[in-house]
Amino acid sequence: MNKLSKNNFQNPLYNISDLKLAYLAGFIDGDGCINGQIIKSNDYKRKFKLQVSVVFYQKSSRRWFIDDLHKTIEMGYIRERNDGMLELTIKATKDVKLLITKLIPFLVMKKPQAELVLKILFLLKDIKNDHEFLEVCKLIDKFATLNDSKKRINTSEIVKNALFPPVET
Amino acid sequence: MNKLSKNNFQNPLYNISDLKLAYLAGFIDGDGCINGQIIKSNDYKRKFKLQVSVVFYQKSSRRWFIDDLHKTIEMGYIRERNDGMLELTIKATKDVKLLITKLIPFLVMKKPQAELVLKILFLLKDIKNDHEFLEVCKLIDKFATLNDSKKRINTSEIVKNALFPPVET
Repeated sequence: MNKLSKNNFQNPLYNISDLKLAYLAGFIDGDGCINGQIIKSNDYKRKFKLQVSVVFYQKSSRRWFIDDLHKTIEMGYIRERNDGMLELTIKATKDVKLLITKLIPFLVMKKPQAELVLKILFLLKDIKNDHEFLEVCKLIDKFATLNDSKKRINTSEIVKNALFPPVET
Repeated sequence: MNKLSKNNFQNPLYNISDLKLAYLAGFIDGDGCINGQIIKSNDYKRKFKLQVSVVFYQKSSRRWFIDDLHKTIEMGYIRERNDGMLELTIKATKDVKLLITKLIPFLVMKKPQAELVLKILFLLKDIKNDHEFLEVCKLIDKFATLNDSKKRINTSEIVKNALFPPVET
C-alpha cells in the first residue's frame, strides 16, 4: 500500500476527469476484473475473510502502462505473474470503494459486479452475527455467475457448514 | 455492411460524446485489436490486398454488449467464432478511418497502431507503382511487433519476392 492510500482524501481519484474515468471503465470492461471472494483464514473470528477486489491486467512487456495507471490511481500493488502478465490489484476496502464509486457511472458490462461490491461493502460495515455474515457470503457467490468463474474454492455453502454445522441425527 | 456505413456522414460517430469515445478507447486498449494485414488475393492487380481493421471482442454470452456497440458505431459486422467468442470487425476503409480518427485522442496503449493505420490509409490513396506499394507493406510489417503477433502469413518480404522476383544467376 502506498503512502497516499492511507489518507484517501489525498487520492488523485478525487480530482480525476470524467474522460479518464470513462477510459478506465472501458479498460476494465474489456480486460479487467471486479470480484468478490470468500477466503479461509484462521486470523478471522468467523474463520473466513470476505474480500472484494479490482484487478487491471497487462502483458509484462507493457509495464509502462501499468506503472502509469498505478500513478494515476495511487492505490493497489503490482504483481508479476509467471505467465508474462502483470496485475495491478486493489484490495484495501476504502480504495476499492473509492475506485468503484468513481467508475460506476461509466461502467457498462461490469456495472452489476460494481454494484454488488458496493452493496457488500455497505453490509460488511455492520455485521452483527453469523447469519448476517452468511447473507453477505451469499452475495459473494453471485460473482461466480457474473464473472463466468468456474473454480470457486469457498462458497456460502462452505461457510454455512462451518458456522452452522449440520446436526447429526 | 449496413446501410448507413455507405454514407458515412450519417454515421452516429459524428455525434458521439467524448465520454463514449474515451470508454471505447479504454475497451480497445484492454481487449480490442487495431491491425494491418497483407492478404494474398488474385483479384488484385499486385496479387496482394492491404487490409486494416479494428476488432472488438466479447464472449458470446454477452451478445447484448456487442449488439449495443454495433448500434452505437453503425459499422462493421459481427462474427461468432467456434470458441464462444464474438467479434465485431470493422474493415471498410472509410469506416476504419472514421473510427480511428475519433478514437485516437483517447487511445493510450494502442495509439501507435492507430497512428500507423492512418498513415497506411493516407499512403494507400495514392500508390503509383510497385515500389510505393512495397513501402506500405513494410509499414504493415510493424503491426507484428506492436501487436505481439507471432503468426504473420504474408510479410513485405513475400510481397517483394512476388513483385520483384530475384534474378537467378
